[in-house]
Parts: sequence; C-alpha cells; structure tokens
Amino acid sequence: MKPINVGLLGIGTVGGGTWDVLNRNAGEIERRAGRAIRITRVADKAIEHARSVVKGRARVTSDAHEVTRARDIDIVVELIGGYTVAKDLVLDAIRHGKHVVTANKALLATHGNEIFAAAQKKDVMVAFEAAVGGGIPIIKALREGLSANRIEWIAGIINGTSNFILSEMRDKGLAFSAALKEAQKRGYAEADPTFDIEGVDAAHKLTILSALAFGIPMQFKRAYTEGISKLTREDIAYAGELGYRIKLLGITKRTKKGVELRVHPTLVPEKRLIANVEGVMNAILVKGDAVGPTLYYGAGAGSQPTASAVVADLVDVTRLITADPEHRVPHLAFQPDRLSDEPILSIEAVETCYYLRMRVADRPGVLADVTRILADSKISIDAMVQKEPGEGAKRVDIVMLTHLALERNVNAAMARIAKLPAVAGGVTRIRLEQLL
Amino acid sequence: MKPINVGLLGIGTVGGGTWDVLNRNAGEIERRAGRAIRITRVADKAIEHARSVVKGRARVTSDAHEVTRARDIDIVVELIGGYTVAKDLVLDAIRHGKHVVTANKALLATHGNEIFAAAQKKDVMVAFEAAVGGGIPIIKALREGLSANRIEWIAGIINGTSNFILSEMRDKGLAFSAALKEAQKRGYAEADPTFDIEGVDAAHKLTILSALAFGIPMQFKRAYTEGISKLTREDIAYAGELGYRIKLLGITKRTKKGVELRVHPTLVPEKRLIANVEGVMNAILVKGDAVGPTLYYGAGAGSQPTASAVVADLVDVTRLITADPEHRVPHLAFQPDRLSDEPILSIEAVETCYYLRMRVADRPGVLADVTRILADSKISIDAMVQKEPGEGAKRVDIVMLTHLALERNVNAAMARIAKLPAVAGGVTRIRLEQLL
Repeated sequence: MKPINVGLLGIGTVGGGTWDVLNRNAGEIERRAGRAIRITRVADKAIEHARSVVKGRARVTSDAHEVTRARDIDIVVELIGGYTVAKDLVLDAIRHGKHVVTANKALLATHGNEIFAAAQKKDVMVAFEAAVGGGIPIIKALREGLSANRIEWIAGIINGTSNFILSEMRDKGLAFSAALKEAQKRGYAEADPTFDIEGVDAAHKLTILSALAFGIPMQFKRAYTEGISKLTREDIAYAGELGYRIKLLGITKRTKKGVELRVHPTLVPEKRLIANVEGVMNAILVKGDAVGPTLYYGAGAGSQPTASAVVADLVDVTRLITADPEHRVPHLAFQPDRLSDEPILSIEAVETCYYLRMRVADRPGVLADVTRILADSKISIDAMVQKEPGEGAKRVDIVMLTHLALERNVNAAMARIAKLPAVAGGVTRIRLEQLL
Repeated sequence: MKPINVGLLGIGTVGGGTWDVLNRNAGEIERRAGRAIRITRVADKAIEHARSVVKGRARVTSDAHEVTRARDIDIVVELIGGYTVAKDLVLDAIRHGKHVVTANKALLATHGNEIFAAAQKKDVMVAFEAAVGGGIPIIKALREGLSANRIEWIAGIINGTSNFILSEMRDKGLAFSAALKEAQKRGYAEADPTFDIEGVDAAHKLTILSALAFGIPMQFKRAYTEGISKLTREDIAYAGELGYRIKLLGITKRTKKGVELRVHPTLVPEKRLIANVEGVMNAILVKGDAVGPTLYYGAGAGSQPTASAVVADLVDVTRLITADPEHRVPHLAFQPDRLSDEPILSIEAVETCYYLRMRVADRPGVLADVTRILADSKISIDAMVQKEPGEGAKRVDIVMLTHLALERNVNAAMARIAKLPAVAGGVTRIRLEQLL
C-alpha cells in the first residue's frame, strides 16, 4: 500500500520526539500498520532549527498553511499548542480534508465541540491520545477498551508537575515554594507555573476525559479548579499520620443530580495504588460498572512519551483512513447525535468527605463549639486528632475527617467556625476520596 | 443501521456476565457503537439453565454447531473454555464466515497460530481482549495504544488466584497450603488448583502478550513455567526485610540473544507500583522504548470484568465489520506476513538477578566456601543477610541477592553449594527483577 504522508506543525519538544520515534521505529510501525507512515512536510517558525532536525528528509517551511493545504498531505499533526494559531490551523486542515492528530488539550477543552463538529462535517478524524496522560493510552481505553461499561467515575493524577511537587513536599518535608523551585530547576515546571500548579492544565485534561466517559460536550468553563499552591507541609504530614496521601486529582463522577467535574488536592488512602504514584508520573483510575476499578499509569509528559501517543494516533488514523466514516470510533466515544445533556454540578452541590484543620486556643469548650457547628450543618465526624504544632504552644491543631457531606454545608460550617474567637486563621479544608 | 446478531457459546460465569452487561448497558453501548448489538442465539449443554437466564429473549440450543452455522449470526462468542470442543467450534464458526470473540487463553496460546491463519483466510476477525487480564484493556493497549513503540519487555501479575495466595501469605503470615485453602473457600481457586498455582494459566496469557509485543508466533511450549507452591513464609518475610515483595510474574523480554518467556515467583522492589497489587487484582507493566514504563491494572477475572472485555470486543468487531480487512488491526498486532522468527530462549540462557537462601551450620568457613563457589561461577553478590531461624539453632539462614547473572551459572553454583557438608536441604532460588 502507498505510504501515508504526514505534515508536522511544530517541531519543538513533542514534535521533535515525534520525528524521532517515527523514524527510529519506522520498520516496526510499518510491520504493524501495513504501510509506511512518514513525515514529508514540517512547518515551524524556527526554520533553521527545523532544518537541523529534519536534515533534508522533509520539506520545511515557516508557513504552516502551506502544510495544512498541501495536496500531498494525508494527516496534519498539530503540536504548536495554545488556542489561537493552533485553532486556525486545525480548522484549516479540516477544511482542506486532512485528518488531524493533536496533543493540544487546552484547544480541545475550550474549542473541542466546534472542532469535532467541523471534522464530522468533512468526514475527517481528529485524534488526540496525546492530549491526556502523555503516552498512556487512556483515550483509547475510555473510547474503546471500556465501551461495555457505564462509566461511574474517573480520578486521575493528570499533571506531572504538581505530582512531582507534592512528592517532594512529602518525601523531603519541603514547603511548597521550595518544591516548586526544585521542579523548575529540573525543567518540570515553567517560569510561570500557574497552569500546572493551579490546576488549569489538569482541568483541561479532565474536561476531555469527562466528555469521553459520559458522552457529554466539552464544558471546561464549568470545571471547578483548585491548585496546590496553598498546601502546607503540616497538612501533608497530618494526612500521612492518618494514613492518607495528598494528590492533585482531576475527578469526574456521574451522580443522580448531574456530573461532577473538579480538580483539587485530595486525600487518598495510602493503600490505594494511585496514592503511590510518585514524581512526574501520571495515573488515571477509571471505575466502570462491569469492569470495576481499572488504573492506567505512565509518563504524562515529555518528548518521547507524548510522541508515543501521537504516533499511535497516526497508526490508528492510517488504519481507518479508507473506512466508512460511520464505522469509525466517534470523537467523543459516543455518536455525535447521541450526546447527553447531563448538567455539570457546581462545586457547592458536590458531596464528598473532608479533611478539616483548624488552629485553636488550647482551652476547654472549644471542641464542643466546633463539633456543635458541624452537627448543625449535618456534618458527621469520622476521625479526629489533636496536634501540638510546637513546644509550649498555647494553640493546638485539630484535624477532623468527615463522613460524606454536602460542600455547601461544609462552607457554611467553615464560615461559622472561623468566627469563633478561639479559632485562629480560619479552617483549612481538603477534600477526601476513598476511591472505591 | 441494522443490529448485529451475536451467538453465544456457553452461558456460565463469563457467558452469563456477557448476557447481563450487553442487556443492562444496551443503551449506552448503542450510543457508542452506533447500532444495537444483541445476543440472539445461545448454546449451552445445560439447556434449562440457559433458558432460565435468557427468559425467551434468545433462541436456546444444546447444539453449539447450530449457532456457529446460523445464517443470521454475525459474531460468535466462544466462552466454553478448554482446547478440544472450543477449538472445533471456533474453527467451525470461522469456516462459516463468522467473526469470533473468545476469552479462551489456553486455546489461543496452544492453537492460536492455526486459528488466526484460518481467520485470515476467511477475512474474519478473532478478538480476544478477555483472554488476558480480564477487563483490563491490555490487548488493545499492546496492539494499538503502544503501536509507536519497540516493546522492550512486559512483566505482569496475570493470575489473580496466585496473587491472592501470595497476598494472604504475606499479610497474615500463612503457609502456602493455608492460603490456598482460603482461596478455595472464597471461590478464587478451583478444587484442582494446578493451572493457577503452577503458573500454567499465567504462561498461556504470557504467550499471547509476548506474541503481540514482539510480533512472533505463539510458542506456549517454549515458555518456562514455575509456580508458587514451593514458596515458604520465611522467604516472603526475608524478602520483605530486604525491601522486596514476591509476586508470580509473567515476564517476556526482547534480548540480543532472543526472547525470554518465563513465569515464576519474582522478587520486586516494594516501591514499584506492581509490587503493591494485592488480592485477586491483575496488573501488567509494559516497557516501550518511547513511552517508557506503563502499567495497566484491574480485575483479572470474574463474571462482569471479563464480560466487559468480551463486549468491548463485540463493539470493536461491529465497527470493523464492514472495513476493508487489510485495514483491520492484525490479530497478532503485526501484519501476518511480517512476523519475526526471533527464538525463545531457554531458561538457562536467561540473565537476571537472584535471591538465594541456604540453611547452613553456624561455624567458621562456611560463608567463605559459599562465596568462593559463587565467584567461580561469575556471580557477584549485591546484598547479604544472616538470619537465625529460631532460638538456640545451630544453623543459620544465609540470604543473598546477586547482581545480574546467567541462570546456567547459578544452577551450577547451586549444585556445588548443595554438596557442601555444612549446607542442609539445598539452596532456595527466587529470581529478582528491578523492573526499571
């Protein structure tokens, strides 16, 4: 069969990895796909850099539209990132009848509905395995591997930078700022780390997973996003003493009231496999009604792991390129005319368990006041410990784990507790999930 | 689109689960597949039982050939198990132009080459996600999700019964026989547990994984198989003290000399995720050259989890039923005319690390003799501890962990050590893998 010609937009970290993997494993890939897959055109603003990578084995241009419109290109790979230029190029490629492979989670989470609709109209595929979990084939698992299941929930470590920071904080007893510096030193965090540490990147990825799991449109704007920058060493240590690890999880769950879509630091029992995922690795736990809990683990970022997903998509698209479009796996796992309109719940409507920590004056009656307020808000306590933060302290830390409670009620109780004269500095609240 | 008609052979544990999942999630599955998938014929020797499950919603027969030959059937699901009847039926279904979905690892590991060749000739698909790792979509991950990679090795906990027994032995300090009894009591082990505890079932599954990973034919007969029945509490405890867990792993690895294909108890560093997989759960670690290590975890057996995989295959086959056969994913991941003939290595040619334990007289010079023998066989020691098995004992246990060594050399050294007058009862050897 005739080779598949790929046009590559962006030959930076992931693009360079894709060039590398596709060339290095060309033989193995052809043995699998049944035909050669080769990058014949590359577009990059840094044209000299692009030339130095490609070494004459593909046509290089600084004008990406040359690639999206080239008659000799079957599949366009978008690895530029960002929302604006990337969006124009992806839509231009679709308009010109090209299949698209992209790693761009920000683009899909915010403009995915529009992009998939355009692709649908032109009978082309938009593949995006690399958008979530780097090289972990989690998109394929959700779209195909678990297709027998009614998915109940997903909980994932889907941002390696935050997971590295949390691992460092726990392992070495570092403060957040010191752990962030270490991550930056190692190249795991950018100079402006906001997207990673404030949960935005994770929320992009979770939005995609949620759409695939439940057959709903992408609704990034409705995601609740809370990062790790306010976590303290003390909370990580207290959680540890209670048998929990704190992880930044993206959680999406189908409930009777609607779909939960939330990213936040989460206490997880240390016995769970996902609690033991350390450093920049990612892991996604998926609970299906038939299969039960399943977990997918691997490198969530990096040149070669992400390229692994990009190239797997190229093989998939290659296989389906002649297939009847009706028989392809739908972009969002469910047939586009069969999407559901289940609403995304506000965080106030979420019901989960909580870790609550407050620093209080060490005198009689305080605990009675606190527990009374919790009881008034229908919050029942599962476990409680009292800690002395330092020698001769006149204050103690009270840490409570609650049973299932409604977030709205927890907010109300926290506000009332913070007003107690014996309580200093408000209440620290971290959500807790059993993940069973 | 018109519904897909499925014929089910065997409506026992997995067959019943398949019936259940396909009916319960019919709506969700149709939203994904774009057409209904329904079981219209069922064959089972226990015809009354079959009727009581099906309740008139499918035609029931005790003659399986009625189903494999029925004109109105598109896909035949074989869930009978075993080699002989199942083989005849699968080949008969293929002969009649039916696609086949099977969970039968024993059949595929021993007759897969013949079955896939027959399917190839008739342009039909044989799907077998349920044959390895129950509901974990590991076949899909290997055949499709990791298609960009040159797979380097796979190490998997692929027999839940053995993993449960090992978990019980470690957790509760039980002897093998007591843990086996507990597994039987809970229905995890059969009355004759040989297939599970002696590694035969794991070797069947590993044979399939190895073929998919490396593009080689199924070669079950060449697999090295060693079970867990001779493991002692002491070895599990000593391994724990050294920071290791003992797991029954199926390991297949591509080396310069050939392909390793071996099932045996293995020491794994306790920090590895796979070392923390407990009870009847399965997990498969796959190392690709681009993606690095990835892990897939879930229920490896049971009615509903296995049905999850069977039904996922039904959806896949449904999608590809009208596709050009050339564009389907090849049965063994690689195009049938592009399989490799890399040889399977004998266990003697394997190079790995070892845990060696010997009970010796507590007197000077013994250790010198032992270490001399090891050095003669080019085996270097990474760590060593000496243990007193009981109070007032005149013998001590010596436990050594070796660096990489050739199994042939280890065998020779073990034979020589066993002949030392100070050594009682031979040398216990357990292989050790770092899994990095």
